[in-house]
Amino acid sequence: MSPLLQVTSYALQFINKKNMTKEKTSLMEKIVSLSKRRGFIFPSSEIYGGLNSCYDYGPLGVELKNNIKKIWWRDMVQKRNDIVGLDASILMHPRVWEASGHVDSFTDPLVDCKSCKKRFRADHILGQDYLQPGHMKESPETKHIPKKCPECGGELTEPRQFNLLMETYLGVVGEEKSKIYLRGETCQGMYVNFENVRDSMRKKLPFGIAQIGKAFRNEITPGHFIFRMREFEQMEMQYFVNPNDADRYLKEWKEARMQWYLNLGINKDKLRLYRHKEDERAHYAKDAYDIEYDSPFGGWKELAGIHHRGDWDLSRHAQYSGKDLQYFDEKAGEKYIPYIVETSDGVDRSLLTFLIDAYSEIEGGRTKTTESTKETEVVLKLHRDLAPIKIAVLPLSKKEKLQEKTLEIQKKLQNKYMTMYDETGSIGKRYRRQDEIGTPYCLTVDFDTLEDNSVTIRDRDTMEQERISIKELDTFFQDKFYK
Amino acid sequence: MSPLLQVTSYALQFINKKNMTKEKTSLMEKIVSLSKRRGFIFPSSEIYGGLNSCYDYGPLGVELKNNIKKIWWRDMVQKRNDIVGLDASILMHPRVWEASGHVDSFTDPLVDCKSCKKRFRADHILGQDYLQPGHMKESPETKHIPKKCPECGGELTEPRQFNLLMETYLGVVGEEKSKIYLRGETCQGMYVNFENVRDSMRKKLPFGIAQIGKAFRNEITPGHFIFRMREFEQMEMQYFVNPNDADRYLKEWKEARMQWYLNLGINKDKLRLYRHKEDERAHYAKDAYDIEYDSPFGGWKELAGIHHRGDWDLSRHAQYSGKDLQYFDEKAGEKYIPYIVETSDGVDRSLLTFLIDAYSEIEGGRTKTTESTKETEVVLKLHRDLAPIKIAVLPLSKKEKLQEKTLEIQKKLQNKYMTMYDETGSIGKRYRRQDEIGTPYCLTVDFDTLEDNSVTIRDRDTMEQERISIKELDTFFQDKFYK
Repeated sequence: MSPLLQVTSYALQFINKKNMTKEKTSLMEKIVSLSKRRGFIFPSSEIYGGLNSCYDYGPLGVELKNNIKKIWWRDMVQKRNDIVGLDASILMHPRVWEASGHVDSFTDPLVDCKSCKKRFRADHILGQDYLQPGHMKESPETKHIPKKCPECGGELTEPRQFNLLMETYLGVVGEEKSKIYLRGETCQGMYVNFENVRDSMRKKLPFGIAQIGKAFRNEITPGHFIFRMREFEQMEMQYFVNPNDADRYLKEWKEARMQWYLNLGINKDKLRLYRHKEDERAHYAKDAYDIEYDSPFGGWKELAGIHHRGDWDLSRHAQYSGKDLQYFDEKAGEKYIPYIVETSDGVDRSLLTFLIDAYSEIEGGRTKTTESTKETEVVLKLHRDLAPIKIAVLPLSKKEKLQEKTLEIQKKLQNKYMTMYDETGSIGKRYRRQDEIGTPYCLTVDFDTLEDNSVTIRDRDTMEQERISIKELDTFFQDKFYK
Repeated sequence: MSPLLQVTSYALQFINKKNMTKEKTSLMEKIVSLSKRRGFIFPSSEIYGGLNSCYDYGPLGVELKNNIKKIWWRDMVQKRNDIVGLDASILMHPRVWEASGHVDSFTDPLVDCKSCKKRFRADHILGQDYLQPGHMKESPETKHIPKKCPECGGELTEPRQFNLLMETYLGVVGEEKSKIYLRGETCQGMYVNFENVRDSMRKKLPFGIAQIGKAFRNEITPGHFIFRMREFEQMEMQYFVNPNDADRYLKEWKEARMQWYLNLGINKDKLRLYRHKEDERAHYAKDAYDIEYDSPFGGWKELAGIHHRGDWDLSRHAQYSGKDLQYFDEKAGEKYIPYIVETSDGVDRSLLTFLIDAYSEIEGGRTKTTESTKETEVVLKLHRDLAPIKIAVLPLSKKEKLQEKTLEIQKKLQNKYMTMYDETGSIGKRYRRQDEIGTPYCLTVDFDTLEDNSVTIRDRDTMEQERISIKELDTFFQDKFYK
């Protein structure tokens, strides 16, 4: 069997430990282990040994992922009059990828060590990471590539260029069988639909098209858990503007996207905006910024990008399709190819970052039950709106009357919120289980509840407990979550 | 260029008009035209001539699609303690598709007419549609296949079997390059994760795993607009049960899924439950039902399936992976391979059905403005929770004060609801624009609003207008939509 189909060990495969401190390695191992143990992320096809660099989102992972996507859509589409959504198919006409430049130049330079047989991306061992999620990159000039293997000092092969587009075939026989590609980025779907969207929605510049969807890349060196996968999801927005306004909107969008992560609780000290140097920019980019997170695997890593793409995309598609993609600007009284300012966020990378940033450990435990004061307690301090489970509902004991009452309360909450019922173990243990998956509120039904129709709400972060009347629950939670 | 990459005409490609009355053809043409004109559905890569049987969802289409998925998830996952979600990757280990039987027998029998060169699925010209969304089907026995072309009477080739799995390659060179498949159905991701989900979520039987995601099939004869595409989306749920309970849950689920469509407003007379005859069942099925809709393109068509899959799936994966996938049932005190009752719904098919079922025309117009009484008026009577736009916000005229007030009101509503601002054309025209896309409520800001802080709310279906105070809007809409 091909080595690509084998996954030696879940905990080991995710990461290149080179340049990682012991502490950081241990943090990543804890994240990976928590992800599997609590149902966030599993290796794909694990019973068959896994599929290298592919992962499945478990019951809590899919909720977290859906929340990220929902919040992005709310902020980028629902709350704005100038942006509309799109969901283009993964399979596109192959000419799209010729026009975009991917067929010719969406390549990675690969080198092999002749002595230890390790494989490297030539640009990676230059010490720079040119990979821009969502986009093709320039290949570094080969003259910069060291001729020695960074692992064993052996001789390296000359770099070879490999195209990252994944191929498939449409049609079954003979002349009908056509080679097409799985999209390497979602943005092309928005460019080719520029006119359809503008016409059907009667939009004037500036306006944006937003899309969330899967993209595929035959990465030579995937890794770092779900950070770089061969199948991944993007949240992208293309903002079409008058060329004179592009710089202004680039500034606006880089601030807005940065703020988005801060609003969702990411530690400010771990985020930075990095401006691409001229020789780092992709061929389409007039200017480009990355939002970077100080990750435990190798420091500052790109989380999102904001790109000034100029008229590259629409010009190329106009040229290759023979359609006139110019826009008539009534106010300016002229026709032009709109410029594009793009925001590109990785769903999987955001998710991993939210997990890492929220992970915290408290030594000695903080829950006031004997059994739980001895060990380390994990609290996932996810923003409430991101938390997979919003409210855990817990009968104090397995008495039938308490169970019934708890389920009755849960039934109402379930209409609005993702909840979890748990009756197993001591209440302290159950609080800790919820802390570990980031549940902001635990609602406990006890014997008093049967008398006073009130419940205890325990806050994940303050651990404070409040007694709330059942009929006030609706208002109580409405104030806590974005709706 | 391969004929598969060409789309002659958007309005013509979608449908095989054979067996369709003129009226039904016209209805489908109207749906297709509305879909493009108002931004529900565009042909994929249209500026390059389209990609046969692939479509893109426009700004309103993606909202409708997201609403369908959100409601399904709410009803199948959020509101239940016995079902959890999953999001497995599209790329899976190739052994999965050997175990499932797809590599060997996920085939369509294809015949060509030697004289008119038309291609048919042999099972289709048998007069039966064996295709079960989400699943492999049995090939019909070749002895039933007529030897004459149903179009021209010419001689047909012998049926040839073609595998529907779409292939791609992982890895870039030599021994590492591995052939894998794009998943042909989403359910396999749930079977191979059965143990990971059960362990991480501490679930006991009966419990279910739900998933929404893309699947790919190299269909020989795709068509009927978005009804049968090569790339499509499924909403599937696998319910794992004690073998003794399977029949009971099959009954429960077929009723629940039928009710789901009724709750979302589908006309009862156009829906039926069809039980597969023994020789129509897929190889894995012990019993199977289809929910069918009386479509304008060829009558009763499968919208969803409910399948009693027995122990086929887990037994096969246990055999092929070498893992013990038995479940220890504490109550029964025994180990067994759980049986599976599956519900399988097509996202795209549901969406098309909701569009068709909601489409209505009123002759002579119904809006009381002169300009609009002359022609046919279209009203898309979508269920409120499905409607892409919940509330249109309309200043009576383009006066700046009205625009400002309208935007101020919209800003609050946008936090919760998908809204649309429109100031172009007479108010009557704007109402009609919203009727055509199914917007349940139009909110109009007029000069009185500036004095009395009230607005006019117009109901799509009754066309009644109500005067509502701005401060009561929140309560007013809260009662109208599911939250």
